[in-house]
Amino acid sequence: MVRKFIIDTDTASDDAVALVMALRAPDVEVEAITIVNGNMPVAQGSRNALYTAQMCGRADVPVYIGADRPLMRPRVHAHWFHGEDGMGNQFYPPPERQPEAKHGVQAIIDTVRANPGIVMVTLGPLTNVALAVRQAPDIVGKVSRCIVMGGAAGTTGNVTPAAEYNIWCDPEAARIAFHSGLPIEMVGWEVARGEANILAEEMEMIRGFGTPLARFAMDCNSHAYKATIEQSDDLGLGLYDPVAMAIALDPTICTYMSKHFVDVETQSELTRGMTVVDRYDVTTDERNIDVWRSVQEHGKNVTVCWSIDVPRWKELLYSTLK
Amino acid sequence: MVRKFIIDTDTASDDAVALVMALRAPDVEVEAITIVNGNMPVAQGSRNALYTAQMCGRADVPVYIGADRPLMRPRVHAHWFHGEDGMGNQFYPPPERQPEAKHGVQAIIDTVRANPGIVMVTLGPLTNVALAVRQAPDIVGKVSRCIVMGGAAGTTGNVTPAAEYNIWCDPEAARIAFHSGLPIEMVGWEVARGEANILAEEMEMIRGFGTPLARFAMDCNSHAYKATIEQSDDLGLGLYDPVAMAIALDPTICTYMSKHFVDVETQSELTRGMTVVDRYDVTTDERNIDVWRSVQEHGKNVTVCWSIDVPRWKELLYSTLK
Amino acid sequence: MVRKFIIDTDTASDDAVALVMALRAPDVEVEAITIVNGNMPVAQGSRNALYTAQMCGRADVPVYIGADRPLMRPRVHAHWFHGEDGMGNQFYPPPERQPEAKHGVQAIIDTVRANPGIVMVTLGPLTNVALAVRQAPDIVGKVSRCIVMGGAAGTTGNVTPAAEYNIWCDPEAARIAFHSGLPIEMVGWEVARGEANILAEEMEMIRGFGTPLARFAMDCNSHAYKATIEQSDDLGLGLYDPVAMAIALDPTICTYMSKHFVDVETQSELTRGMTVVDRYDVTTDERNIDVWRSVQEHGKNVTVCWSIDVPRWKELLYSTLK
Amino acid sequence: MVRKFIIDTDTASDDAVALVMALRAPDVEVEAITIVNGNMPVAQGSRNALYTAQMCGRADVPVYIGADRPLMRPRVHAHWFHGEDGMGNQFYPPPERQPEAKHGVQAIIDTVRANPGIVMVTLGPLTNVALAVRQAPDIVGKVSRCIVMGGAAGTTGNVTPAAEYNIWCDPEAARIAFHSGLPIEMVGWEVARGEANILAEEMEMIRGFGTPLARFAMDCNSHAYKATIEQSDDLGLGLYDPVAMAIALDPTICTYMSKHFVDVETQSELTRGMTVVDRYDVTTDERNIDVWRSVQEHGKNVTVCWSIDVPRWKELLYSTLK
Repeated sequence: MVRKFIIDTDTASDDAVALVMALRAPDVEVEAITIVNGNMPVAQGSRNALYTAQMCGRADVPVYIGADRPLMRPRVHAHWFHGEDGMGNQFYPPPERQPEAKHGVQAIIDTVRANPGIVMVTLGPLTNVALAVRQAPDIVGKVSRCIVMGGAAGTTGNVTPAAEYNIWCDPEAARIAFHSGLPIEMVGWEVARGEANILAEEMEMIRGFGTPLARFAMDCNSHAYKATIEQSDDLGLGLYDPVAMAIALDPTICTYMSKHFVDVETQSELTRGMTVVDRYDVTTDERNIDVWRSVQEHGKNVTVCWSIDVPRWKELLYSTLK
Repeated sequence: MVRKFIIDTDTASDDAVALVMALRAPDVEVEAITIVNGNMPVAQGSRNALYTAQMCGRADVPVYIGADRPLMRPRVHAHWFHGEDGMGNQFYPPPERQPEAKHGVQAIIDTVRANPGIVMVTLGPLTNVALAVRQAPDIVGKVSRCIVMGGAAGTTGNVTPAAEYNIWCDPEAARIAFHSGLPIEMVGWEVARGEANILAEEMEMIRGFGTPLARFAMDCNSHAYKATIEQSDDLGLGLYDPVAMAIALDPTICTYMSKHFVDVETQSELTRGMTVVDRYDVTTDERNIDVWRSVQEHGKNVTVCWSIDVPRWKELLYSTLK
Repeated sequence: MVRKFIIDTDTASDDAVALVMALRAPDVEVEAITIVNGNMPVAQGSRNALYTAQMCGRADVPVYIGADRPLMRPRVHAHWFHGEDGMGNQFYPPPERQPEAKHGVQAIIDTVRANPGIVMVTLGPLTNVALAVRQAPDIVGKVSRCIVMGGAAGTTGNVTPAAEYNIWCDPEAARIAFHSGLPIEMVGWEVARGEANILAEEMEMIRGFGTPLARFAMDCNSHAYKATIEQSDDLGLGLYDPVAMAIALDPTICTYMSKHFVDVETQSELTRGMTVVDRYDVTTDERNIDVWRSVQEHGKNVTVCWSIDVPRWKELLYSTLK
Repeated sequence: MVRKFIIDTDTASDDAVALVMALRAPDVEVEAITIVNGNMPVAQGSRNALYTAQMCGRADVPVYIGADRPLMRPRVHAHWFHGEDGMGNQFYPPPERQPEAKHGVQAIIDTVRANPGIVMVTLGPLTNVALAVRQAPDIVGKVSRCIVMGGAAGTTGNVTPAAEYNIWCDPEAARIAFHSGLPIEMVGWEVARGEANILAEEMEMIRGFGTPLARFAMDCNSHAYKATIEQSDDLGLGLYDPVAMAIALDPTICTYMSKHFVDVETQSELTRGMTVVDRYDVTTDERNIDVWRSVQEHGKNVTVCWSIDVPRWKELLYSTLK
């Protein structure tokens, strides 16, 4: 049976690999790709997504440009991580197709309404998702899974000591999305780093597949490879978005998960964008109830992924690029 | 020459009078009425707006339901001020027309794009406006004036000591709207209170006009009349939205105005929703520049109304209801 | 009967005039002058206070150096307002006496305990007072009046659009002091400005008194005279601290006062140091009770001064300097 | 050579064990025990400390009562964890000695000044320490080590999802202490939990020592034993303060430590009291520099303890109680 996906992405190099994984998955139909401001401005993100779809022979998948800035915060892009074009400074030629005229937020609303039960995967800040659920709250109940690459569960962030980039970029949007009741599966950067990284020799092995997609995936992430170690002292290439996509494609790649109340910090600059996970179930006790009341409207709607099966994640990646 | 208006409203009793003023203005064409959560839930606000339009013989003006809650905050309505139905517990019959199918946010986007130079008047929280400018930033440059009933300029608020109701309800939306570059004319509650209130004898005089609209305006505000004194120790009926509409219709009713940087407090519960006006031009000095940087992107885009010509405001009201 | 005073001051030019008023008041005994970081670093403030006491022939009054920085915030001085030495760049000779060895906070504690019923007057940030009440809560009940020059009641601030300098400098200390139960009489900058300012011709008249103190008072405030207009568009010399001292000396100079719950903003940078006055008694409302709960422990312990008798304030000033 | 210690404590059951460790250490002279509000009100904390000293035959060690509440926050005690008396509801008889008359804050100042190079160990909220360093900044340079039991380094808290109890109780005080330049060694609750807990069989073994102190240590922690699992799902008795004291006594028990910029969250209720550790050295980045500037005044003055040698910690505990 075909599963329908909608993917929201600030397409840079690791988003591109995640898109490849979805577009090439035999049992998945990508109904829409929506572009959000994040790693890249939306114009560049849109070009990168269109080029990636084209590389997969799926230039027919519609790409919609969405919010061109966070709800409340100034734009901060990640050129330093992904390169000037977001694609490792490969400066690929312009894609053959154009993005659709419809706005990304409207595309999310229309696509979800037209495809109840659809799987949503978000690879960037949650601005489009927040705008969509505020305008059309009914879509919340029509999404079967919402896999979010973002956050850090009870651990250090990558962009600040408290926060991961996607959530930090637009914490207000993240808070809206997390509180909306969407069936979120949070894939924090910490489960996708460390031994989940693709080491130099693994990158060589992938190149050795000799396929255009293998070369594309490694070329466009060459800059991110160098940036990974600078960001987190980790060896190898961090492919955070593809790990989230792997879990979207095969939930069993997440080996330990649990449901929790999760809130997002929006009031402090120091901890801006932190994903605060109530791991020990304390938010209903006397000391926490006032602060956490608003999170409890929809119950524990966030499933936190705590660990992954690294060999199987890598196997899924390899099989996609072969 | 006909002026085109779009009115965003959380229609309760004083909104209703403001709507009457616009719908009856001979040189004004109301292109759309959009409903936002605020005084009332949107279903009730929509009924109230439709009924009011019908009372004016303008059931043809389209009414669109917009955001049904603030961006980040829980809903807090003002039944205590306006009555259970928002219309002074008159429990008017259901309106003959229905709201349009299109969402209020989309209606704002489409209406402004179709009518460049349109005048926007907002009588409720700025949720719809914020969602619209984030989804369609191009509309900012197509609005000629944006009269906002809301805020308190360098003075005490009505819902909290720091804030006025409309801004307090959805401070994040207000901040987005105020920072968007929209040519805002801020009509705070303080210019519409005190001697601008309609005293008991003036209410009697209005009733004496004997018109259906005069009776309607006074009936539906009977509850607000009693609530005004409870809220602010002011005598008489506070008609904050109609004062803003008066200025929209005739800018000379504002007798003193000036342009300022204005920010909206969103980080503190104590001062949530305060409209902070840089009256003495200090926000570019060394002590303030860091905090105020984000406001300065669009220059001094907010015109603060400091005082009104009370007799002329009342005269305009009376002429509408005669 | 002699009244006992303790004065906490960040002595610059207007503090100096306030000190003169107290030291020359026939029925007042100044038990201690304690120096706090604020307008000036404490070393300079101490020199200014000692020199002023010496000018009054009261070099015997002990001066104690207190906190050399705010509780949580970096130091921000007001050289731009009061001159490099805080005394209008008069660069007076070093005082003959030295400050006492005891710390200012300990001096406050000991002096209040030794003089129950003492009047406390604060002319700077409330750091010393906060440290004293946290270390010795019993002193709260031993102060008969605590006149605070600081804040802005429901109006615009002088250092930021939301806040007055003394409170803004150390908002956490102000919050501690305001919540401590001290019988605070808040004299905001707004009652001491405008027509309360000393105009150029009045300054000339004072100089014409021909006394050393008249000359001293005008010389050391020459820089502040120029700064006043820059700060607030006001004509004349703003003497905020002396107005507070006038009310301390003669409470009837305050012509309208009322008791309120007052909180101090510490959570937001935008409104940092705002004195939020519950003028309309709304803080026990359903909408406000959670946020304002902590303020209500000691009842309405803050008396806000709303207006002063300007001619009598000036008469008191003149009589001091003659 | 004798090492001099000063211990600040909100004495409840695990503090008591830590006190025993210090008072019985052959090469340590405890110059002062200062009591702070925290687990217990200061009156109870003082009784518990005096009784513990008496149990060790060291009733001569002076105990000083300090701050009876946090700087800015309401009091929240931990009776639920430690029992009504903080000592596992053993209701020990009143101690023979009384606390000293001098205030705990003054005692810290005087003791440190009289013993330059002293080791400070803090087992409770940092209120006393903050008041002391603000009143006497010179003491910072006279403390050779400042071991802080408190915080959670890049992991989940125990009282809220973001914060550990001691820091959460008085985050403003913690921020003052952490920013003061004190040579802090932060022992977060996470290094003292889990396998560092004393399991039921280990508790039995300790009782088997047959000494009064062994019995005392186990009796007074009987309530905490039950509370540990409720708080954190951990088996066994969490002895957080004794682990910190073990590191104070023998720094090599900490097996991995590193120096970092550390800030404490005071602006948000959600993350109140979080100890934010800059583990990946990002706070001087363009993205972080503004927010983290104030922390950088004193360089990386906080040494974070990441792991301990569990067998050696337990061995040290056992040898103390034998």
